[in-house]
Amino acid sequence: MFHHILQAQSKYAKCIDDDRLEDWPSFFTDDCLYRVTTADNEKHGLAASVMFADSRAALIDRITALREANIYERHSYRHILSAPVVLSEAAHEVVSETSFLLVRIMRDGVTDLFLSGRYQDKYCVENDRLLLSERIVVCDSSRIDTLLAIPV
Amino acid sequence: MFHHILQAQSKYAKCIDDDRLEDWPSFFTDDCLYRVTTADNEKHGLAASVMFADSRAALIDRITALREANIYERHSYRHILSAPVVLSEAAHEVVSETSFLLVRIMRDGVTDLFLSGRYQDKYCVENDRLLLSERIVVCDSSRIDTLLAIPV
Amino acid sequence: MFHHILQAQSKYAKCIDDDRLEDWPSFFTDDCLYRVTTADNEKHGLAASVMFADSRAALIDRITALREANIYERHSYRHILSAPVVLSEAAHEVVSETSFLLVRIMRDGVTDLFLSGRYQDKYCVENDRLLLSERIVVCDSSRIDTLLAIPV
Repeated sequence: MFHHILQAQSKYAKCIDDDRLEDWPSFFTDDCLYRVTTADNEKHGLAASVMFADSRAALIDRITALREANIYERHSYRHILSAPVVLSEAAHEVVSETSFLLVRIMRDGVTDLFLSGRYQDKYCVENDRLLLSERIVVCDSSRIDTLLAIPV
Repeated sequence: MFHHILQAQSKYAKCIDDDRLEDWPSFFTDDCLYRVTTADNEKHGLAASVMFADSRAALIDRITALREANIYERHSYRHILSAPVVLSEAAHEVVSETSFLLVRIMRDGVTDLFLSGRYQDKYCVENDRLLLSERIVVCDSSRIDTLLAIPV
Repeated sequence: MFHHILQAQSKYAKCIDDDRLEDWPSFFTDDCLYRVTTADNEKHGLAASVMFADSRAALIDRITALREANIYERHSYRHILSAPVVLSEAAHEVVSETSFLLVRIMRDGVTDLFLSGRYQDKYCVENDRLLLSERIVVCDSSRIDTLLAIPV
């Protein structure tokens, strides 16, 4: 199971880094939870989220809105992920946590370390596929809100 | 064995990044060696270490001292690790090397690439658990001494 | 197979980071393709490459030239790799893609995020060894040409 999770994480990252955002919702179950928050908020039990979606349909809407808005100067991302820590493993659900680093590459070529944090995931097995029923993206830094346009 | 090492490495990193420093010594054997040094020192065979401990008890002392001192402005870390290279594997000992990147997040949210290097590890199997009997942290840069307060 | 690829990738990175460049060509087949290009060039189908070699012999020549030239101030690298995405897997060939981050450490200790991108690889199995028959290094940023002296 461990190496299936490892593989699923890399595929997820590749989807975003390849700018195939329309495929991004397909990594989630129909009834999913996707939330982006900060370590400070998480620590103090604050519900405040930078991004929030509670279904795959909402994720699809988000991407549609993002493509239509198109207000951000085009830039690309590169995810670098550590191996996940598997926290629990049952027949149909795996809970894991994965450290990530997000590098941002601006159009003029300037590359910077944009964001770091951890994915808190619940993966479930549906028809031999691993899907995210929950992904909480906990960003290490609190200075992220205005910058995040595309999914992490 | 490879994926057990991979998993152990991620758990170690998570322990530090979660600020559960009191659990950190539990990743080591009683008679362990933990040393932080630089690539230059290592290359020239210099014994000089930025940190040195030769037992789990010494690691525990270090954390106690660190918590009591508390002189550093609070910041957090994020480890990003490549997969280990397994250099040798025997019944009870695995020698491996792992590249790491350490990102530091200051209280004001500023994130920087703090440290890079490699873990030179000896893992041994005790009661079905993988424990570090030796971890030499070789930092790529020589400019590290005054900055390192918490374990790597 | 997945974890063999994972292991091979780490060994490749270690070879360069340890400055054992003379061993670098041994990761490739005799008739290999090694190319370094940018995401922009790749997207627009441009053949322009920052580096190009179509045999192991050419890779060996390149290292010899690099060692003799020796015009660059000495610095070192640290590769950090995500787990590969396996795109296809046949009896003797595995096609995969791996995200990488390259950190550069100058002699004075200054560490910077130097390069990010993806390896587009074809691995083939020869005598129980995994060798690269093709590695296309696609750099995310377009500002790389004058800086790249050593292999990625």
